[in-house]
Amino acid sequence: MKQKRVVTLGEIMLRLSTPGFERFTQATDFKITYAGAEANVAVSLAIFGIPTVHVTRFPDNDLGLAATQTLRKFGVDTSHILYGNERMGVYFLENGAIHRSSRIIYDRFDSAFAHIKKGSVNWNKVFEGAGWFHYTGITPAISQGAADVCLEAVQAARKLGIIVSGDINYRRNLWQYGKSVLDIMPSLIENTEIMIAGSKDIENCTGISGNSFEDACKKSFKKFPNLQKIATTKRESINSSRNKIHGIIYDGKKKLKSRVYDLTHIVDRVGTGDAFMAGLIYGILMKKDDEQALEFATAACALKHTIDGDVNLVTIEEVENLVLGENVGKLLR
Amino acid sequence: MKQKRVVTLGEIMLRLSTPGFERFTQATDFKITYAGAEANVAVSLAIFGIPTVHVTRFPDNDLGLAATQTLRKFGVDTSHILYGNERMGVYFLENGAIHRSSRIIYDRFDSAFAHIKKGSVNWNKVFEGAGWFHYTGITPAISQGAADVCLEAVQAARKLGIIVSGDINYRRNLWQYGKSVLDIMPSLIENTEIMIAGSKDIENCTGISGNSFEDACKKSFKKFPNLQKIATTKRESINSSRNKIHGIIYDGKKKLKSRVYDLTHIVDRVGTGDAFMAGLIYGILMKKDDEQALEFATAACALKHTIDGDVNLVTIEEVENLVLGENVGKLLR
Amino acid sequence: MKQKRVVTLGEIMLRLSTPGFERFTQATDFKITYAGAEANVAVSLAIFGIPTVHVTRFPDNDLGLAATQTLRKFGVDTSHILYGNERMGVYFLENGAIHRSSRIIYDRFDSAFAHIKKGSVNWNKVFEGAGWFHYTGITPAISQGAADVCLEAVQAARKLGIIVSGDINYRRNLWQYGKSVLDIMPSLIENTEIMIAGSKDIENCTGISGNSFEDACKKSFKKFPNLQKIATTKRESINSSRNKIHGIIYDGKKKLKSRVYDLTHIVDRVGTGDAFMAGLIYGILMKKDDEQALEFATAACALKHTIDGDVNLVTIEEVENLVLGENVGKLLR
Amino acid sequence: MKQKRVVTLGEIMLRLSTPGFERFTQATDFKITYAGAEANVAVSLAIFGIPTVHVTRFPDNDLGLAATQTLRKFGVDTSHILYGNERMGVYFLENGAIHRSSRIIYDRFDSAFAHIKKGSVNWNKVFEGAGWFHYTGITPAISQGAADVCLEAVQAARKLGIIVSGDINYRRNLWQYGKSVLDIMPSLIENTEIMIAGSKDIENCTGISGNSFEDACKKSFKKFPNLQKIATTKRESINSSRNKIHGIIYDGKKKLKSRVYDLTHIVDRVGTGDAFMAGLIYGILMKKDDEQALEFATAACALKHTIDGDVNLVTIEEVENLVLGENVGKLLR
Amino acid sequence: MKQKRVVTLGEIMLRLSTPGFERFTQATDFKITYAGAEANVAVSLAIFGIPTVHVTRFPDNDLGLAATQTLRKFGVDTSHILYGNERMGVYFLENGAIHRSSRIIYDRFDSAFAHIKKGSVNWNKVFEGAGWFHYTGITPAISQGAADVCLEAVQAARKLGIIVSGDINYRRNLWQYGKSVLDIMPSLIENTEIMIAGSKDIENCTGISGNSFEDACKKSFKKFPNLQKIATTKRESINSSRNKIHGIIYDGKKKLKSRVYDLTHIVDRVGTGDAFMAGLIYGILMKKDDEQALEFATAACALKHTIDGDVNLVTIEEVENLVLGENVGKLLR
Amino acid sequence: MKQKRVVTLGEIMLRLSTPGFERFTQATDFKITYAGAEANVAVSLAIFGIPTVHVTRFPDNDLGLAATQTLRKFGVDTSHILYGNERMGVYFLENGAIHRSSRIIYDRFDSAFAHIKKGSVNWNKVFEGAGWFHYTGITPAISQGAADVCLEAVQAARKLGIIVSGDINYRRNLWQYGKSVLDIMPSLIENTEIMIAGSKDIENCTGISGNSFEDACKKSFKKFPNLQKIATTKRESINSSRNKIHGIIYDGKKKLKSRVYDLTHIVDRVGTGDAFMAGLIYGILMKKDDEQALEFATAACALKHTIDGDVNLVTIEEVENLVLGENVGKLLR
Repeated sequence: MKQKRVVTLGEIMLRLSTPGFERFTQATDFKITYAGAEANVAVSLAIFGIPTVHVTRFPDNDLGLAATQTLRKFGVDTSHILYGNERMGVYFLENGAIHRSSRIIYDRFDSAFAHIKKGSVNWNKVFEGAGWFHYTGITPAISQGAADVCLEAVQAARKLGIIVSGDINYRRNLWQYGKSVLDIMPSLIENTEIMIAGSKDIENCTGISGNSFEDACKKSFKKFPNLQKIATTKRESINSSRNKIHGIIYDGKKKLKSRVYDLTHIVDRVGTGDAFMAGLIYGILMKKDDEQALEFATAACALKHTIDGDVNLVTIEEVENLVLGENVGKLLR
Repeated sequence: MKQKRVVTLGEIMLRLSTPGFERFTQATDFKITYAGAEANVAVSLAIFGIPTVHVTRFPDNDLGLAATQTLRKFGVDTSHILYGNERMGVYFLENGAIHRSSRIIYDRFDSAFAHIKKGSVNWNKVFEGAGWFHYTGITPAISQGAADVCLEAVQAARKLGIIVSGDINYRRNLWQYGKSVLDIMPSLIENTEIMIAGSKDIENCTGISGNSFEDACKKSFKKFPNLQKIATTKRESINSSRNKIHGIIYDGKKKLKSRVYDLTHIVDRVGTGDAFMAGLIYGILMKKDDEQALEFATAACALKHTIDGDVNLVTIEEVENLVLGENVGKLLR
Repeated sequence: MKQKRVVTLGEIMLRLSTPGFERFTQATDFKITYAGAEANVAVSLAIFGIPTVHVTRFPDNDLGLAATQTLRKFGVDTSHILYGNERMGVYFLENGAIHRSSRIIYDRFDSAFAHIKKGSVNWNKVFEGAGWFHYTGITPAISQGAADVCLEAVQAARKLGIIVSGDINYRRNLWQYGKSVLDIMPSLIENTEIMIAGSKDIENCTGISGNSFEDACKKSFKKFPNLQKIATTKRESINSSRNKIHGIIYDGKKKLKSRVYDLTHIVDRVGTGDAFMAGLIYGILMKKDDEQALEFATAACALKHTIDGDVNLVTIEEVENLVLGENVGKLLR
Repeated sequence: MKQKRVVTLGEIMLRLSTPGFERFTQATDFKITYAGAEANVAVSLAIFGIPTVHVTRFPDNDLGLAATQTLRKFGVDTSHILYGNERMGVYFLENGAIHRSSRIIYDRFDSAFAHIKKGSVNWNKVFEGAGWFHYTGITPAISQGAADVCLEAVQAARKLGIIVSGDINYRRNLWQYGKSVLDIMPSLIENTEIMIAGSKDIENCTGISGNSFEDACKKSFKKFPNLQKIATTKRESINSSRNKIHGIIYDGKKKLKSRVYDLTHIVDRVGTGDAFMAGLIYGILMKKDDEQALEFATAACALKHTIDGDVNLVTIEEVENLVLGENVGKLLR
Repeated sequence: MKQKRVVTLGEIMLRLSTPGFERFTQATDFKITYAGAEANVAVSLAIFGIPTVHVTRFPDNDLGLAATQTLRKFGVDTSHILYGNERMGVYFLENGAIHRSSRIIYDRFDSAFAHIKKGSVNWNKVFEGAGWFHYTGITPAISQGAADVCLEAVQAARKLGIIVSGDINYRRNLWQYGKSVLDIMPSLIENTEIMIAGSKDIENCTGISGNSFEDACKKSFKKFPNLQKIATTKRESINSSRNKIHGIIYDGKKKLKSRVYDLTHIVDRVGTGDAFMAGLIYGILMKKDDEQALEFATAACALKHTIDGDVNLVTIEEVENLVLGENVGKLLR
Repeated sequence: MKQKRVVTLGEIMLRLSTPGFERFTQATDFKITYAGAEANVAVSLAIFGIPTVHVTRFPDNDLGLAATQTLRKFGVDTSHILYGNERMGVYFLENGAIHRSSRIIYDRFDSAFAHIKKGSVNWNKVFEGAGWFHYTGITPAISQGAADVCLEAVQAARKLGIIVSGDINYRRNLWQYGKSVLDIMPSLIENTEIMIAGSKDIENCTGISGNSFEDACKKSFKKFPNLQKIATTKRESINSSRNKIHGIIYDGKKKLKSRVYDLTHIVDRVGTGDAFMAGLIYGILMKKDDEQALEFATAACALKHTIDGDVNLVTIEEVENLVLGENVGKLLR
């Protein structure tokens, strides 16, 4: 049976990062990549061999073209991307070390994606051959148009029996177009089956507060009956260069906790949540149970910490070897 | 006698240029500089030893700080710079070669500078010890606030007996805030004594059309009685890599034409007009007549074509040697 | 009407070039691109908006993957690429300057492509929706298998009424598998309608010698009745840094000669013939006559000299502007 | 009340460091910065918002200019810098890793600074608006002239009621102009109120040996009655890549010891002592007591280990967050 | 007494490694070095001051020249190198981090070295002034010719009373020319006195299996009476970025185990075995006993982990300081 | 017959050049090479296959080692190099373009070479197997010791019947140790047979002034009867990026003038005189007459303008092809 396509929606930004450990005020060059939370998921899945489609809106200039080419390079279907006159969102990244935190300066307002409009995406066409739709809490935070298009997508997906996942990460600095997070997120979550959220995300996005992660999840399952699983990663930051992580998934009955990974020499921690999400989608689609899916997702997340850029350029084989503890930290000839 | 200060006003952008001859879709790094037409003039004059002050408005983040440090590095007084919450304007540059043109993608709308407001600069304070104010046609094109502040400046300068120069270059892509160029530029030109403009700039900015550069100038002198000199550069583009340039200055009576420079291996042609402007200000202040001033300005402009970045990092000695034809194209040990 | 697809067949190599003007014995880094004569044509056409398919065979490792991603990035269909156990062909490039020639060291023997086997490509499937097939004289020179597959392709194309073009460049260092160029090329040229060849290529590949390009062409048209047009570029090498080129096309009746381009500051001359070929295919498909096609092809070839790498990263608009002499050698804001 | 200026005196060298972990015999490029122990203090304080003046002597060439521009960039007042005909001091740095030590090759003899002469600095003018003067034990070790000027400075400062601090680090390889450290240092320490010194420095510079740091300090306080506080950092070197540090300050009564920082992934340890010194000056000027000053200084020192180059490019906010344990090792969006 | 020369035989490849932590599919540049297991030993010994000769066969092009120059740079005698028409072997390296393994893609088949022929090296001439010959298990695995030449060498060495060492590492991917490892290795080991081998290498290369390293060694000493010492390194891989290593040497009577080194921040682990081998040869030649030799070898191996490239660019002084625990992990001024 | 060795004597400096066209005040990196006028000749000859020995004195540190390795890499015999405690001479290079001159900042005083002492070189040993000795006018300008050693060398060479050549370039900024050029140079020229000198050099170094180059030469031949040939290059500087050159040689009877080379796109003009010198030595040794020697020398000089760094990394074949006009400015596959 041919694998159904995974569709993602969201903004892609020009990421400009300083080389090595240079501060913004030292750098004479920026390293260029193009990335966004949802597209990171699409690319990771494409590398895992899952056919993916990313929907976004780019400026109709060479920056938009370069971003499109980045997606195409990894095999993501770019035929549904819209182009317009506005600007490319940008984010500037400075890598931290030890006690110095990494820092991001966002410059994404009024981007081509923010100008996406209700009705501009033909979701029925996009969803042909699709089995999964993924969004994040960033998209509805960008603009009314982005929120509208995201709602259209989850509703269309629901109607077509397509699984919907949402990483409902809450970004306080966004949400500046007049609506609050509580105005919008519940209607998205209503149509969501697989959710990535910590307790605070749940509280911010739904108003539900629980006395524990499990409690918050239980209340969420109750309020949003379509919800089937809530997953998240727990991160212990020893410092900027060393973290420990593990993953958690809860289906209302059984809370599973993955192995803990000690990330002793972090290369780039941006996009590690997206790597977990991609791993989880892959795991739920291809593995035999939640436990295997969670271990796959967490191992994928762990490996992402060794990759420069937002995107998790690792193969299924590498993730599975890490799950099995084989060929880890070797010199493979 | 201590040299009086030259004050400039205008936006500074983050310039991101692709290395070598890489196209936007090839580049994996951008080279970083901070530059703007008016600040380029201030920096060039500072290197020539003229005390300068630049007035602008930056975002209150590390990009604004880095831009401020760039000005300070060259000795420009940054104590009157304003800081706000908005973004840093950006421009992306791809260097052409032979028949392939160089290309700029601007991403400057809604910048911290565009949000500058009438009354936010205390011009009387800024102009303490000043003898010259310089603006360009870009500033009033950016926003109502920028136009207002620019008008405040020329009027304050006039009142204080400070010489005003304007490079009234017309940028069709700007002027999007509701006013037209003809609504604004004439009131600035009324207060301007030294103007950089070609025939088309004159027509665009004042509505005056002449059947020659001299004719357009004559009509301009008539309409704007404060105007004393109009200068410009003429460029013959053999291709992207080779141009010929000369300078012209006209005071209503005598049109002077500089030597012609054959720029056989252009390194970077951005900012060459600003280099001419800085040379002209220096020449008018320090040289004995317009002929010498023009030759100095044109030689400065010619040398700028050999410098990476917007800013003319050459010394008075180098410009004067070129005017004299001494030590040109040698290996100086 | 939807544009029919252009199919290309040929080896893609890892190109390793020294930075700037460094010699092989100086370099501490190689710049990486993936390129091949036929794929260069496919990519250029893809950038011009023509749907293209490239058929090749790569090693089943990360170098083969990176090469595949390069094609995908530009929108070339890679779904018919074969993968095997052998190595990636490599070529090393050192850029010359003035009187110092550029040099290439080939290391392409026994590559995955050389191991392509008769019958391994399903040409009927590949040619679905195709209107043009392009090959070069390099492919049949690599191995018996490559020659076989190329012959299969031209025969299948002929049967399906697909236009066949061949750039019959003769590479003396290849042809080491036991067959001579005259054993193989005539059977390919028999099925070819559009040919790129100079007099020497014609003589080497067919044994036909003429007392002029036109004479050699006339005899070729006679011997190979399917041949409709023969085109070529003429290059005057002033030195490594400056060449003059023009294009020629001859249909047996009228020899057209394009404008001459003076390439005063060459950035990279590898792949300029492929750029001409791509321009010619585009021109024959989309322009009203051979004259326009030739001017388009030659302008495309001229622009390639300004682009780092084998591939002609220029747009239709840029080529057409050069044909028209508009916006050439400017700073486009 | 306007903050009084901190004045520093000392040589600035051209620092040439190999990239990454390259050894001197591998490197094909050197990274360029300009730095010196005392100027590092001035720059760090300038970034903390304290007005600073650096006094030094540079060659009157583009290296001297580049060094001046580096100071100006960070806002240090460079108007009292002297220029002469001699050379720029240079130091070459190779970064170690794990068990391999970092190595410095000094090439600083006969520099422009070494030629500074008694009487060439008008200290009364320099000290206008100043509240603090800082020197190190390096300056008097360079040349008789440098020692003379340093003594002039501490005496003038004393007379004007300006606080004097000295980091009396002893460099055995210097002190080659005929005087010994014991000939010179005591007369400087006599005028010093805040001293950075370990037990060995005290012994080397004053002849005082104690059976503990406290004992040596006590004897120093006795011998040099102007001395008020002695501070130092203690470093445990696990290897080149990982150190632990803490700070100590002693006022003759109470010895305070700061928190210990585990520097698990060191980026650059050069200049960390200067970062401590700058933090201590800031802390003594702006914090309520020695404990807070010491914690600020030690946190500043810890953060320096994450910054490429000699200079501590961190903000007050970052240091204070580390003291408070807030936003440490995070990804700050 | 003049030190006798150490002769090594083996292939040198062009090593192309991605910068930093870039994956193969991310890299736009490869870092170039030339290296091979036996030449790494020769270079390390040359840096230690031991005269060395390397015998190999290169392509007669600029890559062969560059490789020759690399050896000459370090003082290795290159006068016995052969040149031919074939290709340079290549290996591609991607550095791992944390849980992601480092990966090597070999592209070495049919290299100039593989074409080395029996009788083409005049070993009696090569061995003039020599006291030691070193080979590895890679050479006989490459081709019949390479195996023949290696056997000639060990036999000639034996006849001349020259000590023979062999690092009998078994590479499964090689051995493709028709002979098995057991066909060849025993005849080499028969002539070997100092062997580097772990239990698995012994089993693979000789068929001897022991129930412990000591047991396998004992049986080896019995079967190969010329064998005097077997040494090896033990590596505990915490992950790609952190390993622990120690060395072992066994002479049939006493098994010595070196100090354990905790390699907390690995820069490059390729060539660390060769560094151990070079250290061991140096130690056996210059130190008073096996214990000292082993500590020297293991310390050399530990230091190699901090050096970019295959070759151990450390001095005797650095190795001895590490053995003594002096000046380790410091900033040496 | 085995080719006799060419011996050169002179200082080698660390050359630090800014990348591309960056000015000293822009650069954040220096490119590293090691070079000196006489060593440049030795390296070029070594590449041409002539055995060469270079005598110099280096600091006994890693910079001296790196410089030694650079010579060894190219096959120059470094066994007579002396090492001492002083510093490495340095020169800083900024590449010009068009009308902007290239600039060198020397920092070479008090170098290890300047401390070379009379009697420290055993010239009889150095000259074993030698047939040619080459010096330049730089060496005796550096220090009394350097002048003494140079005089020892020419006298020893003369006694042994070794040809002596001198490039008597006069550097006004040197000669600071108390002797004037006229005190020293005549005694060197007395022992010189082949001299590189223009009219001004002759005048500066000998006091002879002629009304033409030929006249000055004639007078020189008269005054210095050992002199046999005087050669020089003539350079027409169109600008920094384009020069024309030709060579001249005069033996007292016939003045030969080489072909003129139009150097249209100069990469690096430093060391071009040394390239001419090496070509001339090669030509005189290996060619049949002065005409061929001069054409070889001038072609070598022309090619040097295309090579980054001081050293002429071109082969005999490349020089001879240029003399013959074959394969010039091509793409050699």
